[in-house]
Amino acid sequence: MFKGYGDIRSGNSYKVRLALIQLGLAHEWVHVDLFAKETREPWFLEKNPHGKVPVLEAHGGVCLRESNAIMCYLAEGTPLLPDDHLLKAQVMQWLFFEQYSHEPYIAASHAIIYFFGRPPGSDAELEEKRAPGYKALELMEQHLGAHEFFVGERYTIADIALYAYTHVAEEAEFELARFPAVCAWLKRVEGQPGYVSKAELSQELRQEAQA
Amino acid sequence: MFKGYGDIRSGNSYKVRLALIQLGLAHEWVHVDLFAKETREPWFLEKNPHGKVPVLEAHGGVCLRESNAIMCYLAEGTPLLPDDHLLKAQVMQWLFFEQYSHEPYIAASHAIIYFFGRPPGSDAELEEKRAPGYKALELMEQHLGAHEFFVGERYTIADIALYAYTHVAEEAEFELARFPAVCAWLKRVEGQPGYVSKAELSQELRQEAQA
Repeated sequence: MFKGYGDIRSGNSYKVRLALIQLGLAHEWVHVDLFAKETREPWFLEKNPHGKVPVLEAHGGVCLRESNAIMCYLAEGTPLLPDDHLLKAQVMQWLFFEQYSHEPYIAASHAIIYFFGRPPGSDAELEEKRAPGYKALELMEQHLGAHEFFVGERYTIADIALYAYTHVAEEAEFELARFPAVCAWLKRVEGQPGYVSKAELSQELRQEAQA
Repeated sequence: MFKGYGDIRSGNSYKVRLALIQLGLAHEWVHVDLFAKETREPWFLEKNPHGKVPVLEAHGGVCLRESNAIMCYLAEGTPLLPDDHLLKAQVMQWLFFEQYSHEPYIAASHAIIYFFGRPPGSDAELEEKRAPGYKALELMEQHLGAHEFFVGERYTIADIALYAYTHVAEEAEFELARFPAVCAWLKRVEGQPGYVSKAELSQELRQEAQA
């Protein structure tokens, strides 16, 4: 039984939860409240000294961090990560693209606007993130104009990784309508077996909090 | 026979070249001059539409990008990437840490100071990168205080990835003397079989240019 720790409102946590669900893996999910700074608490830092969600507690209690590394771990040997050496490397290259060229711009803008309500003085930072964020979307559009999914014409963890923050890019004030192939791919991802939206998972969280 | 494309002065390119050499893989290395903006030329964009080095042309002419994804591809099934499922995931978590929490601060500072000679107006950008760069070094120090290498007490591509920009951190004006475990680990990396320094590889490049 896996134990996941994260805040489902964050795309990096959502990725791991979605992969666990779509892989049909039995797991417990522990909500770690980012706004309450629970990632800074001693019990959490023992699980991840880097102080970040998500974390996966694997068999034997070993804790893994970094959303995309956790997904590689969970998906190895399943249809979500190809066995083929070259296809697997192509999944990796999109995972690194996501963390280096997409997340720091689109996810970070999303956090500033959607979670922190665009605090005074954040305009310059948001402005800096515009061009590289749009560049990431353009590169995705270019690829998805010719392909159904990111790798091997099938749904993999590369799609989960890139879906996590792309589907909320409008909330980060990136105009997705400019990227029709990306929009069509978002729908394909949402049509995958076992897909659960972030809203549904957050709803579950609210119900648990009320119970 | 592999074909690597990169600028050895960049740590991301150096990683791939070092892995090719230490794995004893026959390869040709094509210098792509970052300063001459060769990554923007049409012949290069055909190999990598993202316009970045390094690129690995694998068997069959398929091109892979993203230094850490290329290293995963090259090292799979070799001592540089453990077969064990959990150890492999731990290598991945350090590779993602390197690209998300280390490279954007230390490598980017290195480029601004060492390659571009600290152009006017770059002070604020450098200042922003100080704290997160030092945070990355602290997390490495914490881990290396108790371990010989990043994963499984042996040399892996996680060490190559983190070595690439850590060993030039002084040139980026990060004081490495504050991190004795990191300094000791740099020496251990430099003692690995087949290790070649960036300086030696750059020297080779200069000799080729003169020939």
